[in-house]
Amino acid sequence: MDFELNEDQVAFADMATAFAKTELEPFAAKWDEEHFFPVDVIRKAGEMGFASLYSPESAGGLGLPRLDASIIFERLSMGCTSTTAYLTIHNMVTWMVTSFARQEVLDKYAESLISAQLLGSYCLTEPNSGSDAASLKTSAVREGDHYILNGSKVFISGAGSTDVLVVMARTGRAGARGVSAIVVDAHSEGISYGRCEDKMGWNSQPTRMISFDNVKVPVENLLSEEGEGFVLAMKGLDGGRINIASCSIGTAQQALNQARAYMLERKQFGKNIGEFQGLQFRLADMATELVAARQLVRLAASKLDLQHPDATTYCAMAKRYATDVGFKICDDALQIFGGYGYIKEYPLERHLRDSRVHRILEGTNEIMRVIIGRRLLADTHSEF
Amino acid sequence: MDFELNEDQVAFADMATAFAKTELEPFAAKWDEEHFFPVDVIRKAGEMGFASLYSPESAGGLGLPRLDASIIFERLSMGCTSTTAYLTIHNMVTWMVTSFARQEVLDKYAESLISAQLLGSYCLTEPNSGSDAASLKTSAVREGDHYILNGSKVFISGAGSTDVLVVMARTGRAGARGVSAIVVDAHSEGISYGRCEDKMGWNSQPTRMISFDNVKVPVENLLSEEGEGFVLAMKGLDGGRINIASCSIGTAQQALNQARAYMLERKQFGKNIGEFQGLQFRLADMATELVAARQLVRLAASKLDLQHPDATTYCAMAKRYATDVGFKICDDALQIFGGYGYIKEYPLERHLRDSRVHRILEGTNEIMRVIIGRRLLADTHSEF
Amino acid sequence: MDFELNEDQVAFADMATAFAKTELEPFAAKWDEEHFFPVDVIRKAGEMGFASLYSPESAGGLGLPRLDASIIFERLSMGCTSTTAYLTIHNMVTWMVTSFARQEVLDKYAESLISAQLLGSYCLTEPNSGSDAASLKTSAVREGDHYILNGSKVFISGAGSTDVLVVMARTGRAGARGVSAIVVDAHSEGISYGRCEDKMGWNSQPTRMISFDNVKVPVENLLSEEGEGFVLAMKGLDGGRINIASCSIGTAQQALNQARAYMLERKQFGKNIGEFQGLQFRLADMATELVAARQLVRLAASKLDLQHPDATTYCAMAKRYATDVGFKICDDALQIFGGYGYIKEYPLERHLRDSRVHRILEGTNEIMRVIIGRRLLADTHSEF
Amino acid sequence: MDFELNEDQVAFADMATAFAKTELEPFAAKWDEEHFFPVDVIRKAGEMGFASLYSPESAGGLGLPRLDASIIFERLSMGCTSTTAYLTIHNMVTWMVTSFARQEVLDKYAESLISAQLLGSYCLTEPNSGSDAASLKTSAVREGDHYILNGSKVFISGAGSTDVLVVMARTGRAGARGVSAIVVDAHSEGISYGRCEDKMGWNSQPTRMISFDNVKVPVENLLSEEGEGFVLAMKGLDGGRINIASCSIGTAQQALNQARAYMLERKQFGKNIGEFQGLQFRLADMATELVAARQLVRLAASKLDLQHPDATTYCAMAKRYATDVGFKICDDALQIFGGYGYIKEYPLERHLRDSRVHRILEGTNEIMRVIIGRRLLADTHSEF
Repeated sequence: MDFELNEDQVAFADMATAFAKTELEPFAAKWDEEHFFPVDVIRKAGEMGFASLYSPESAGGLGLPRLDASIIFERLSMGCTSTTAYLTIHNMVTWMVTSFARQEVLDKYAESLISAQLLGSYCLTEPNSGSDAASLKTSAVREGDHYILNGSKVFISGAGSTDVLVVMARTGRAGARGVSAIVVDAHSEGISYGRCEDKMGWNSQPTRMISFDNVKVPVENLLSEEGEGFVLAMKGLDGGRINIASCSIGTAQQALNQARAYMLERKQFGKNIGEFQGLQFRLADMATELVAARQLVRLAASKLDLQHPDATTYCAMAKRYATDVGFKICDDALQIFGGYGYIKEYPLERHLRDSRVHRILEGTNEIMRVIIGRRLLADTHSEF
Repeated sequence: MDFELNEDQVAFADMATAFAKTELEPFAAKWDEEHFFPVDVIRKAGEMGFASLYSPESAGGLGLPRLDASIIFERLSMGCTSTTAYLTIHNMVTWMVTSFARQEVLDKYAESLISAQLLGSYCLTEPNSGSDAASLKTSAVREGDHYILNGSKVFISGAGSTDVLVVMARTGRAGARGVSAIVVDAHSEGISYGRCEDKMGWNSQPTRMISFDNVKVPVENLLSEEGEGFVLAMKGLDGGRINIASCSIGTAQQALNQARAYMLERKQFGKNIGEFQGLQFRLADMATELVAARQLVRLAASKLDLQHPDATTYCAMAKRYATDVGFKICDDALQIFGGYGYIKEYPLERHLRDSRVHRILEGTNEIMRVIIGRRLLADTHSEF
Repeated sequence: MDFELNEDQVAFADMATAFAKTELEPFAAKWDEEHFFPVDVIRKAGEMGFASLYSPESAGGLGLPRLDASIIFERLSMGCTSTTAYLTIHNMVTWMVTSFARQEVLDKYAESLISAQLLGSYCLTEPNSGSDAASLKTSAVREGDHYILNGSKVFISGAGSTDVLVVMARTGRAGARGVSAIVVDAHSEGISYGRCEDKMGWNSQPTRMISFDNVKVPVENLLSEEGEGFVLAMKGLDGGRINIASCSIGTAQQALNQARAYMLERKQFGKNIGEFQGLQFRLADMATELVAARQLVRLAASKLDLQHPDATTYCAMAKRYATDVGFKICDDALQIFGGYGYIKEYPLERHLRDSRVHRILEGTNEIMRVIIGRRLLADTHSEF
Repeated sequence: MDFELNEDQVAFADMATAFAKTELEPFAAKWDEEHFFPVDVIRKAGEMGFASLYSPESAGGLGLPRLDASIIFERLSMGCTSTTAYLTIHNMVTWMVTSFARQEVLDKYAESLISAQLLGSYCLTEPNSGSDAASLKTSAVREGDHYILNGSKVFISGAGSTDVLVVMARTGRAGARGVSAIVVDAHSEGISYGRCEDKMGWNSQPTRMISFDNVKVPVENLLSEEGEGFVLAMKGLDGGRINIASCSIGTAQQALNQARAYMLERKQFGKNIGEFQGLQFRLADMATELVAARQLVRLAASKLDLQHPDATTYCAMAKRYATDVGFKICDDALQIFGGYGYIKEYPLERHLRDSRVHRILEGTNEIMRVIIGRRLLADTHSEF
């Protein structure tokens, strides 16, 4: 066992920290306020390899383990949670395309996705299929060399500003085995975008409904095989859960650092508030749970890298725990700032708003409990 | 003992509910979005007596017990947390003026405050004196028939849109006994208002810094006596804590109702999500803690009405517990809504944003613990 | 509304406190250690009316409201949780007999139960029917003037040392409507008692399995009518939940008092540990949640007294919350005592052991959530 | 990074599991009931190397990293928490003696401690110095070739049944720098033992007060140098915290396994209780927090092995979190067992009793928060 970052990981982490400090943190409040999607900055991230962290090297990606990607996303999200979260989604799209696309699609998209010249959106959720993803209704009916797509997707990150959609659509029978994953040009005829959702947070990335009205897509845009879409989606989700958990850890670390600094500086009753034991205990608990959560995320990422048979369970644990703990730390940090935590001049309330959605997406934390509970009851385990 | 609402209380509660449903709830989202201070609606509330709930009848107020006011604020906040919270502040100002002002000031302001034709702001907090209120620095130096005010106040609710300020200022020596409460015309020469703070929530009421630069105020504007300001502030705070706790209870009840309705309507995996026991247990806990918190608030209000020697302790308990529990219920309700809870089309995320600040103001929940802990250790009690 | 104890309640509370201090507290540790059932002290309690608190006056009981009984049990349990808990069970038996028995049974048992000359046990739970009480299998088959009982009951408080059993047995079809409540002489032929269960706590009352092997019981021993047993059981349970919740409140109050006293006395790092803010905050939270829990219990008791349609829901809330909070306070108090909290020389670890079972019996706290959740989803409510 | 057990670790873990299953688990309930100290079994553990896990190989110990010891203690405690906890203390004594003793002492004790033919006790806490260990008063005054010890120690594990004491005594001035660690023959003249403390749990190891009345100890029994005792104690404590945290993890894992098995077997309402989602969610949370806690313990052990400058902080975090989470899991598991969890026929209530003290000893969890909070505020960190 070895719990220390290796040299590469330290280098990646430092690079990500530097990027976060110069390219993200100074602008995050403004992007939040103006609901601005920083496409240029995302492209810069792409230049550094941050858009294809775990895409296969053979296709031009960095080919990093999920564990290394987790470390990088953690550091990036210290600069801007919302933008980093979008970046994790783009990474998922890039990974899906570079791992499962046919050559024509690879030729068309791989390089641009890897460099983030083109941006991707991942289209799974529908108005009536959230947690119950396998019940999705968007259809892709084959006609000659094309699929004809009809239906709608909701809560799509980046939608309206991205170029490449990976769409989960029903090509066959009901249930999970009738779902296929298809790459769709986001500018295709028949696609319309809803209004930009006004959200509590995650404001540096647009979220829209997408409607497909007889959208024609070449059959070669199918990823893997027909009926394999849900399998890919589930594979993607394990990694997606690590990613979003990592964003919670990074955000919480940032909030903790800020609370700590404030405690050393803010004076009340003639001394730094850091001298009050009630607050010291709070800070200690924040740090302790943060370190525990980080370790759990890294363990899960490692299990995923090893293709451990319980990887899905570990990823669900990491997602559930890190996003709950991360939110709680942001909430505690806001409290330490008092009234200043509640105003937008300080970043605390933004951390809370941004991290709130992590407990919901990539499978709600209730669905995580379903996954974990089911697995626990199905089989005995040596260590959980 | 009697835990049931009496006839009057039922009537007041019904009236408040009707007002909340017709005058507040339909507009709350818009006011939040547009940062609109609904002065006209507050005046309508004034017409119904909601601006002087516990002001003495002798001065034209309703003269209700704090307990009744709590019930009314709870119901109003089911319609709009932020507007009701401002209304509680206006009530505090009205109460202070109608209870402690000299005749000249009564003649000038009482009627208009009671009818909410003039609105009030309460000015205690300063940049460097938040929890440590007694260290405030704003000075009121007597010159002939006037006080000359200098200093600044922060986080002032309503500031810039209100007419009457109750300002805590130092007329004497350092510490609590040197503080006086003075009524100040909000449009006086020498007063300047900072920019409207951009806050996480409470957006239907403006919050600004106020600076006093040699502001002249007639000496008869003093409330009670010189040096009594902190005593009045503390008296006001006990009630203010009940008020804000009541707003948390109402907001949480509204969130609970909405979550409950959603559970009966949202379908996943072929059934209403209300059929999942994991969510039922959550809902059960939300309701249980809400009922416990409401009882604690009402107990504290009653102790305040009885001028019980431990009223301050009970009020601190009620404020601490109800605002924490209220926020948690809003958070849980948002979670039950899933992705829909995170977008502004639904009221859940607003409930969370609005109720967040209740844990901070009127004394942070940490200060509440200081008050409670100190009292507990000072003396034995039969029932806590 | 009125949250203050009335004169009678103060008098009862004082009487109970005096009894607890002189007759229970000095011996509680010894009874725990020696697993001694203090029958004589229970009889003394009977002499004071504590064995028939809410039994009808017409039958010789005190006829108090449940609310008053709650106050009394709370105070008694400050002296000895385990003995008071048994007393609440005896009260339930006395109430059932005095309320629903035929004249012959009343003549035989009422007076002795009321005076606690005879002690009662309540027999509902079976090895395979705990939470699912309606599935019970003990049968009472009518033969001429008698019922013939067969089956077994587990976890019966007092069993082996009591005289009168109220047994829930199946006289009819499957399900709740086939259950009847029957008074059984505990010394009847065919009854055998299992060994005294070795329990974590509640050691001053014996707990045994009871087996019925063709036990003959006169038909007039039926309470109410055939098939009404489950209705009686459920009625009894609402009150039983208030009672056990009250025992948790009393135990927690005692633990809190002891922790408070210890904080004022124990010195570390040159000062009383009460001067450490980390511990003060803990104590403040303990007290706050205790007061909230007590209010919830009293509210529920009052709803039961008023036969409010939601009384069962309120009782479930009170039981769930008060027993969880009560245990947590005992646990926190133990922690404040440090190593001394862990040894039997001090009462803290006993409070924890005794109060632990309250979260399980009279319906587990999970069953409480089922009850509350079901009710919430079935109907709208104004205040929860 | 690598989160998997290596081959050696797997082998040690398997060996420990086998020992736990055959030598500990079958007897643990009986030892608890009879307050029996299983010296023979501890000697068997010694034969397997479990008495000198991290003692230096040069002195005959296994010389394992703390991380490996943690894995072993975790598995052993699945069999018997209390006995394993004593074994960790014996390991600490063995490690202190084998690492810091002079040759004469090594010759006399090393081999017997390593084989557990002689058992050790660690004597730090005094009646008035618990958390504030540096204030200890037991004195060791040099007279010629001897120290003369006077004073008393409390809560000494094994006392009365052990052979070798490591005693922290004051040889110099007040404060930490005046403390020395001295090896004392437990059977020396002038040592008297108090009565066996009756504890909530940890009943398979005796706990007694030890009084020193002019006890003569050869000067060569000094460990390291005069004034270094507190430094050794603190070093020992870091490891001791890992050890006790590991015992909490193992106990919790055992409780979780038992709860899981019970959920698959216990039927209510016509199905296994494992089919109720409310309980599944509970089980999922238990497992998630257990895995997080285990990772934190292993991280801390690894930091200690690496002599990382923040090792003390990590150990404090691990101890605080793992002992709190471990207790909570035992408590949840007990609850899942319902009434059966409360009786001694099942091991659940013993797990709760045994694990309760882990939150108190080796520094209370409040002291852990002091350590963590102080460190956090003293310096910036990259990852907490």
